[in-house]
Formats: sequence, structure tokens, C-alpha cells
Amino acid sequence: MTLDIKFRVAREQDLDRIVEMLADDELGRKRERFEKPLPESYQKAFQAISDDPNNELIVACMGNKVIGVQQLTFIPYITHQGGWRATIEGVRTSTTERGQGIGTLMIEWAIQRAKERGCHLIQLTTDKQRPDALRFYEQLGFKATHEGLKMKLV
Amino acid sequence: MTLDIKFRVAREQDLDRIVEMLADDELGRKRERFEKPLPESYQKAFQAISDDPNNELIVACMGNKVIGVQQLTFIPYITHQGGWRATIEGVRTSTTERGQGIGTLMIEWAIQRAKERGCHLIQLTTDKQRPDALRFYEQLGFKATHEGLKMKLV
Repeated sequence: MTLDIKFRVAREQDLDRIVEMLADDELGRKRERFEKPLPESYQKAFQAISDDPNNELIVACMGNKVIGVQQLTFIPYITHQGGWRATIEGVRTSTTERGQGIGTLMIEWAIQRAKERGCHLIQLTTDKQRPDALRFYEQLGFKATHEGLKMKLV
Repeated sequence: MTLDIKFRVAREQDLDRIVEMLADDELGRKRERFEKPLPESYQKAFQAISDDPNNELIVACMGNKVIGVQQLTFIPYITHQGGWRATIEGVRTSTTERGQGIGTLMIEWAIQRAKERGCHLIQLTTDKQRPDALRFYEQLGFKATHEGLKMKLV
């Protein structure tokens, strides 16, 4: 079976569905607030992303249904002879659509998009509490060459 | 002894010195090209960073001498209730000024700047080939909770 998945930039009316997916997850439910109406902070972040040509919030759609989300950030760096990088964050697929290879299509799309944007590298960090995610990314060709360090500020 | 280090946004005339520091490093010498004039790609990246309000290339100065560099990127995300993050990349101090605590001052400055920008989190990845760097960041309060995954695209 071939999956008929389309990718596009997220619209404001997708935001409820995006937060619903982000919250429907073991780690996500501890840190997101899926309520109607959504907390205003989501709306503000959506606007900031939409206004920034180096950020793209991308949804995967099956027909009219949004079944996946990921955010891409393109960053110019001095390192690597002034090379651009793409960072992937907030990757989530619908829990009801798992196991069909949608995640793979999403990351392959992200890699293609990063190449279009002239990036020499694509990167992400994945929580060490998600060993399945690590295997998933390694199978797609990512190398876990780095430690991903975080510090909470609030 | 109190270190008299000042921080400021990098200027175009600092670029030679910045690349010199990035190249003066075991991993850096494999991937940078410190030549005069510099390859044009460095200049283009410098311009892209300068034009982007969410990117800041910061130098640490002792008197008139540039002795450290780091790049900060501020990113709005939908995750964490629409929270902004700061990412640190390309941290380097002058090899002739090591062991004085300059690196610590630089990262403390970055943390303060991230707070000013309203970030809830500050993050970076460090190459697993640099165990000293990992210890350095952990001592400053970073937690190695994530795997840092990379894929080369060229």
C-alpha cells in the first residue's frame, strides 16, 4: 500500500489539532495544555514561527486530516565554513495512525527540504527516555555523535 | 584576580579572528579554512546572522583583543506551550587564554541573555569526542538528557 500523505505549512486553523497531537504523548502530556480555547502562548508562538522565514511548522495530511507535525529551523552558522543547518523539533504523528511509516515519510521530507534550503547538515535531539525514537532516527541515517544538553531557565 | 571580559555583538572586522579561533582546534582544523582573504562563505554567513534578529554572534573581549566567540539562536516553538529556546553553537576561546574561566563567563553570559530573551530553556550539543566539554557544561548545570543526532547532507 502506498501512503498518500501530503505536506504543507501549517495554518492557524491547524493549531488545535497540532497541540492535541503534541499533548497525546507520555512526555507531552506533562508539558502541554490542550484546552479550548488554547492558552494564548501557543497562538503567539505560531505567529512568531509564521513571521520568521527561517522557521517552518509543517503538517502531514491524509486527505483533509492532519496526522503529523514537525518544525524545521534553518540556521546560518560561522562554523563549517559558514554552513547552514536544519534542526528538526516537535515531531509527532497521530497515535491512531502509527505503524504505517508516516514518521519515516515526515523525516524524509524534512531531509529533502533541508537540502533545498542549502543546508550541509540536519540535526535533532531526542530524549534518552525514548529509546525507540533513537533507533528510528538511526535507521534513517542519523548518527548519535553528540550529547544533547539542556538547562531549564524557568 | 577578577577577569575583565566584555561581551558584544561581533563586527565584520572580527571575522578573521573568529575563524582563526574556530580553526585552532582539533575538530575545527578539519572543517574550517582560515585563509586570507577568508572564503566568501564565511562572509555570507556573517551577513545572514547579522540580518536575523533571532541570531547573535557574540565575542568576548579582553581589552581590544577578541578572545572568545559563541553564537546564540533564539527559536520560537509550539512545544512547551509555545516556549522560546536558546541554542548555543560554535563556542570557542582563544587557546592562549585557556584555564582562566573565560568559557564559564561566556556560558553564564549566554544564560543571562537567553533569560532576557524570554527563553524557558537553553540547549546545546557537544561532540562525544570532547569529554572535557561535557564535564564543563554539566558543571555549569546542563543535563545530558538527550542524544544529539546529526546527518551530513553534502
